[in-house]
Amino acid sequence: MKTTVAGAGLVGSLLSIYLAKRGHNVTVYERRPDMRDTSIPAGRSINLAMSDRGLRGLAGVGLEEEIRKICIPMHGRMIHDVQGNTNFQRYGKEGQFINSVSRGELNKLLMTEAEKAGVKIHFNSRLASLDLNTATAKFIDANNNEIVAQADTLLGTDGAFSAARMALMTGSDRFDYSQTYLEHGYKELTILPVNGEFALDQTALHIWPRGGYMLIALPNLDKTFTCTLFFPFEGEDSFATYNTVVKGREFFERIFPDALALMPEFDEEWAGNPVSSLVTVRCLPWKYKDKLLLVGDAAHAIVPFYGQGMNCGFEDCTVLDQLLGAHNDLTTVFTEFEKLRKPNADAVAELALMNFVEMRDKVADPMFVLRKKIEAKFNAKHPTLWLPLYSMVTFSDIPYAEALTLGQWQNSIMEKVMAQPNITERWDSLEVEEYMHSLVKEFSL
Amino acid sequence: MKTTVAGAGLVGSLLSIYLAKRGHNVTVYERRPDMRDTSIPAGRSINLAMSDRGLRGLAGVGLEEEIRKICIPMHGRMIHDVQGNTNFQRYGKEGQFINSVSRGELNKLLMTEAEKAGVKIHFNSRLASLDLNTATAKFIDANNNEIVAQADTLLGTDGAFSAARMALMTGSDRFDYSQTYLEHGYKELTILPVNGEFALDQTALHIWPRGGYMLIALPNLDKTFTCTLFFPFEGEDSFATYNTVVKGREFFERIFPDALALMPEFDEEWAGNPVSSLVTVRCLPWKYKDKLLLVGDAAHAIVPFYGQGMNCGFEDCTVLDQLLGAHNDLTTVFTEFEKLRKPNADAVAELALMNFVEMRDKVADPMFVLRKKIEAKFNAKHPTLWLPLYSMVTFSDIPYAEALTLGQWQNSIMEKVMAQPNITERWDSLEVEEYMHSLVKEFSL
Repeated sequence: MKTTVAGAGLVGSLLSIYLAKRGHNVTVYERRPDMRDTSIPAGRSINLAMSDRGLRGLAGVGLEEEIRKICIPMHGRMIHDVQGNTNFQRYGKEGQFINSVSRGELNKLLMTEAEKAGVKIHFNSRLASLDLNTATAKFIDANNNEIVAQADTLLGTDGAFSAARMALMTGSDRFDYSQTYLEHGYKELTILPVNGEFALDQTALHIWPRGGYMLIALPNLDKTFTCTLFFPFEGEDSFATYNTVVKGREFFERIFPDALALMPEFDEEWAGNPVSSLVTVRCLPWKYKDKLLLVGDAAHAIVPFYGQGMNCGFEDCTVLDQLLGAHNDLTTVFTEFEKLRKPNADAVAELALMNFVEMRDKVADPMFVLRKKIEAKFNAKHPTLWLPLYSMVTFSDIPYAEALTLGQWQNSIMEKVMAQPNITERWDSLEVEEYMHSLVKEFSL
Repeated sequence: MKTTVAGAGLVGSLLSIYLAKRGHNVTVYERRPDMRDTSIPAGRSINLAMSDRGLRGLAGVGLEEEIRKICIPMHGRMIHDVQGNTNFQRYGKEGQFINSVSRGELNKLLMTEAEKAGVKIHFNSRLASLDLNTATAKFIDANNNEIVAQADTLLGTDGAFSAARMALMTGSDRFDYSQTYLEHGYKELTILPVNGEFALDQTALHIWPRGGYMLIALPNLDKTFTCTLFFPFEGEDSFATYNTVVKGREFFERIFPDALALMPEFDEEWAGNPVSSLVTVRCLPWKYKDKLLLVGDAAHAIVPFYGQGMNCGFEDCTVLDQLLGAHNDLTTVFTEFEKLRKPNADAVAELALMNFVEMRDKVADPMFVLRKKIEAKFNAKHPTLWLPLYSMVTFSDIPYAEALTLGQWQNSIMEKVMAQPNITERWDSLEVEEYMHSLVKEFSL
């Protein structure tokens, strides 16, 4: 089987390893230059939160342990209020954690592993056109030469602004498509080490929740933190309003004073780093006969607030590999893939949008913290009856769609529990636990 | 003011007349050949239902009377059941009607009027690229030559699959966009005259409602009816299932026997006419500074079931002309246009989707017919308290968004009225009328 893969990002690289291990003859075309030769442009040194679904995707090609070496475990959220007080909220049970990992380092490692597995990667090659009926793709290289790639099928792993998807959109009838932007954008900033050490606790993901917006920070191997300000483009408090270094600094002094104190490069970064937008992409179909399949962000780009974009994409790889093992016929594989993954992609898109409100607002609410405590306690006592939504998404392989539904069910129960009189004092009582237990049993009927 | 208009369809042609009358130097580029020279391809001889909003758009450039000459008034729906029984349902009050008009004839007339007003139209000219910051457009003509159109602004009236919109989508950040297809497609068929006369009552729009699908027929000036079958692409009863002339004919004999008897060309048409898809397009923004504005289907394509696509597009022209009269600055005009029209475009999209269910299913339900009777009676007695939703959309200039909201309010009242005991017998009683009146007063508080 000869396979063209469009896009050597995280999903494209991992998927090409899976395919090569299955004996496919895989050629990858990547629009950007080889990031192993050139440095990543400033302001886009994004790090990601790798969790169980992503690690399973890596384990499937024997790379989990290799990647864990470049991961920094984060066991919970560290919430920072305006006064500089902090509050640690554990993500799951003792010993459960997510992992901060550099997008660039991860991608470089996966590309090198792909090449080791026999995959050929062409860089600086932009998908210019795609004949859907023959899977014949034309790429334009850095010298403006046309490369014709003829294979049995093409896998589109070229991300949120996928050219492969555009070929499906313009070349086929009845393609449902939406792209929806948030009113918030983001800018990256850096917390530098202090005396050669991490300036903040590196075992946590740091959040400065401020209601309508937030700042977050994830640790890097070089003991810096990459900070991301999620902030409205327009309006009173917005990138448009604080459009100079002086205004940006005055805003940070007022709202994020503890973080600003750790950002010696704030002025240059505020002025120089771009503001990027946040998009959700939904579409259907994801495939054309046995000739084209979209995988990862190309099929379902989501906002980053649940840390699931890459994890979902890697789970796509796991599922696609299983289907390739189960069926000989690519049309069946692609059809089954779409049927299995589309509801989960829709669900994780919704979860990611919901979690923005949770991260920037609810985590600062004592009642939210109490609710999480009650859930954790109930989960510890009745692990088969209750797994918190965050754990289902992050530390399990429960399909996202199922997690979303169970989460809504949990929500309706917790609203009743939290409405109990004097819940703040009585939350740890046997009475409250029994009430919650009765609700769970009632709803489960 | 030098203005480029992309697209000489109905909205593009009418809008260019408005602009020329304001003294703009207008050049229109149209992808298709001049339809005044060539015949329209078979199977796409669509006719439209012109109603008050469309007529107002024409009246604004003095063309209402001219167009009325090619219109055939339709005073109501004629419902055909499987047994061949018919039932006439008036659209509004005595003397209110919608108008069957040929898309092609209307478009030709508007293009000729545009040229009379000084507009230059280039045919066979496809929009290939658009520089958003300078409104410089490049068109490719039939000989593959590039035409560079440089103007103060470009108006994109190039329809549901707008190339101008695609330029905005790919050339600007944060463009919200969705295209959503129905599971139904449509195929056109023809009822021929019998003994030189209309084969059916030409003062009605004919509907054969069958629950999940329907056939409709609109009269033409040549005494034919253009019939449209709205039918699922896939599934038990679908275009995929009845994919031969024999199967199609068998299906029509069973489900639409009276219509089939009037279609001597059924076999050739079933085999030869294409199945077209039905899309709703929503997007935002509709503009780029003072350089680009999308108008009509390019900004808001809708499904045809309320007969409002062209009417909404012509209302766009009326509103844009008023704004051009009120403001000198194009940025303000475009901003105001988007603010005024976007909520109404969203509302009419929803109304059009809702009306498909009404047309193909509810119109055959005696309780629906009764409900319409009660509404008509109440409207006649209390014209300021109650205007039926259909009349608001079709026979008024109430903004679509307002009509949608009022329609939902009416719905909640009518559900209560229809739930009254023995409503079938008591509908005409003073008691029911007073009950309805009390609900209206209560809800109006």
